[in-house]
Amino acid sequence: MIVGSGLLGASLGLRLVGSGIDVYLHDTSPTSLNLACDIGAGQKLECLSDKTQVTTVIVAAPPDVCGQCVIEALNTYPNATVTDVASVKLDIAQEVLAADVDHSRYVGSHPMAGREQSGAGKADADLFDSRPWVIVPTRASSRTAVLNVRTLAVDVGATPVEFDAALHDRSVALISHVPQLISSLLAARLANAPAEALTLSGQGLRDTTRIAHSDPRLWTSIIAANRREISRVLRDFSDDLTHVADALSADSTDAIPAGVMGAVHDAIARGNDGVERIPGKHGGAQQHYAAVDVLIPDKPGYLGKLFSDVGQIGVNVEDFQMEHSRHGKQGIGTIYVENRLTDTLEKGLEERGWSLVVWENDQSR
Amino acid sequence: MIVGSGLLGASLGLRLVGSGIDVYLHDTSPTSLNLACDIGAGQKLECLSDKTQVTTVIVAAPPDVCGQCVIEALNTYPNATVTDVASVKLDIAQEVLAADVDHSRYVGSHPMAGREQSGAGKADADLFDSRPWVIVPTRASSRTAVLNVRTLAVDVGATPVEFDAALHDRSVALISHVPQLISSLLAARLANAPAEALTLSGQGLRDTTRIAHSDPRLWTSIIAANRREISRVLRDFSDDLTHVADALSADSTDAIPAGVMGAVHDAIARGNDGVERIPGKHGGAQQHYAAVDVLIPDKPGYLGKLFSDVGQIGVNVEDFQMEHSRHGKQGIGTIYVENRLTDTLEKGLEERGWSLVVWENDQSR
Repeated sequence: MIVGSGLLGASLGLRLVGSGIDVYLHDTSPTSLNLACDIGAGQKLECLSDKTQVTTVIVAAPPDVCGQCVIEALNTYPNATVTDVASVKLDIAQEVLAADVDHSRYVGSHPMAGREQSGAGKADADLFDSRPWVIVPTRASSRTAVLNVRTLAVDVGATPVEFDAALHDRSVALISHVPQLISSLLAARLANAPAEALTLSGQGLRDTTRIAHSDPRLWTSIIAANRREISRVLRDFSDDLTHVADALSADSTDAIPAGVMGAVHDAIARGNDGVERIPGKHGGAQQHYAAVDVLIPDKPGYLGKLFSDVGQIGVNVEDFQMEHSRHGKQGIGTIYVENRLTDTLEKGLEERGWSLVVWENDQSR
Repeated sequence: MIVGSGLLGASLGLRLVGSGIDVYLHDTSPTSLNLACDIGAGQKLECLSDKTQVTTVIVAAPPDVCGQCVIEALNTYPNATVTDVASVKLDIAQEVLAADVDHSRYVGSHPMAGREQSGAGKADADLFDSRPWVIVPTRASSRTAVLNVRTLAVDVGATPVEFDAALHDRSVALISHVPQLISSLLAARLANAPAEALTLSGQGLRDTTRIAHSDPRLWTSIIAANRREISRVLRDFSDDLTHVADALSADSTDAIPAGVMGAVHDAIARGNDGVERIPGKHGGAQQHYAAVDVLIPDKPGYLGKLFSDVGQIGVNVEDFQMEHSRHGKQGIGTIYVENRLTDTLEKGLEERGWSLVVWENDQSR
């Protein structure tokens, strides 16, 4: 049983129906519900004859009504494990625990599918493939209920991980909500910047502001819901920022004031420490792949030729990035491979006529 | 004549020698100088018989001695246009204008080659290809001197753009120095984050913190040199941040306090406005290329096969990004093409057996 037939609800439905499971859908919007049923994400609630037969209810409703939907589902389906997929967990858990219902059957979820809401028309049975699915039991959740939600996560292709609600909310503040806000605030500095300044933009600016393209309506509700944890992280961030800003703005006619070098060095070095902790491919410790930079003429077919040449050379490409020059006729492609394969790749590329680019301090990336 | 034989000086020398121009090199480090001469970036100063014959001097020395080197060069080479390549310009211009020298022959430069300093061993004649080369005349610079530097920029493959010193320093604060500091401060929040939190990291976090890998020593000197302009941008950033943080931390037992929604929405919407102004490929207004997402098995050869298939389909790939799943056996490749080519590409890929991924709200990118 899925309550809510938006992108998440309909994608879950599609995947579960595809695995031969009976899925019933409900939505307060008949249009959305009809669309979800039409694409094969499940059947309408009126097809369900016996509510006691429902084993699992997934609440994929908007965050502000999620708690209430969970409570209703616990009452309506007396034998079902009930979970919800909202991106902030502590408030919902408290709302459910405060209600007079069977709490043991509720377990929170947060599938990190990277996209939220939107229409059933864009539903995708593979949306959860290989994504973390955070499972958030309350102190009242039964082991059976937790196991049911874990099974659900595996059934849709996700990787279950268990967090308590407070740790979950703190974690997403750190790794998702605060980066979103900071990236937006950084990009906001460009809104009134001189037009000439923008012409000097490089890859570093593009990377740091890419998520500033995000939808304000969607993110306002996510950030408001997790405001307490976000406030804590922002306070620490702001203290660090003030420390650096004070050092930089210290009065001095020409010489660099005492403390500037130390404060800036410390900030950037601690940034090094932090970014090193972000897991790389396959969730292991970040691997330091070697980067091989190749000049690529900006014409059809060259990127394809590069990749077939790399295929011939027989090395496995771990990652690839493309940087286009602003006015030029060529860009730079960066091929990431294991360190031990660098020589093979470089030699093979040069034999096939590619120009490699070699730099020392790779600060622009 | 090039003063300083690090990466920039030696790369300039290599390129100019390759164009048949006589290049003389000087460096206070004999080791560095010998290396630069060995790789063919120029000949030693003692080979120069007549200092009045030198037409152009490029000072590629460390920023803290740059101004003094420019002044010495103006005195030593009475007929030469003198330029420097430091990444902050106002202080050097003022130092030169305050000295008792022929100011008309000095013009500042900042080649946006994305990398600074390091050894001649990594010199690359193509380092400046298609990169902006900012030309910074002072009020005393002659048109001849400006034209000489413009010609130099074109000779090494760069694209000359003219800025006054204050606008240059403000621009690089906005588009380079502040993004570096903010990215480092954001990544610093992860240094003591719970290990579990990091396991939920997604592409948005990786993008916003990528440049936090930068070298603290190099960036401390760049940021210290431009501290006044950086301070101004940081003050505005900090005001915006405080406004959002205050709204988020307003007391309330459960309901979302008045003002939170407005403050957050405004911050993210202004971030949209700012990021839209970053020019895309070829320096035009940002083009909204269509993104086509493809599932790619994480095994050797598949990325190469994808690119040769795209080559066969015959569409020009504007950009490509690869996102690896954390535990999975496959990643998602994003191919950016012009909107009108989307259907051709999607159809061609499906015919060749690739699985496409379709989403609605693309907030994770």
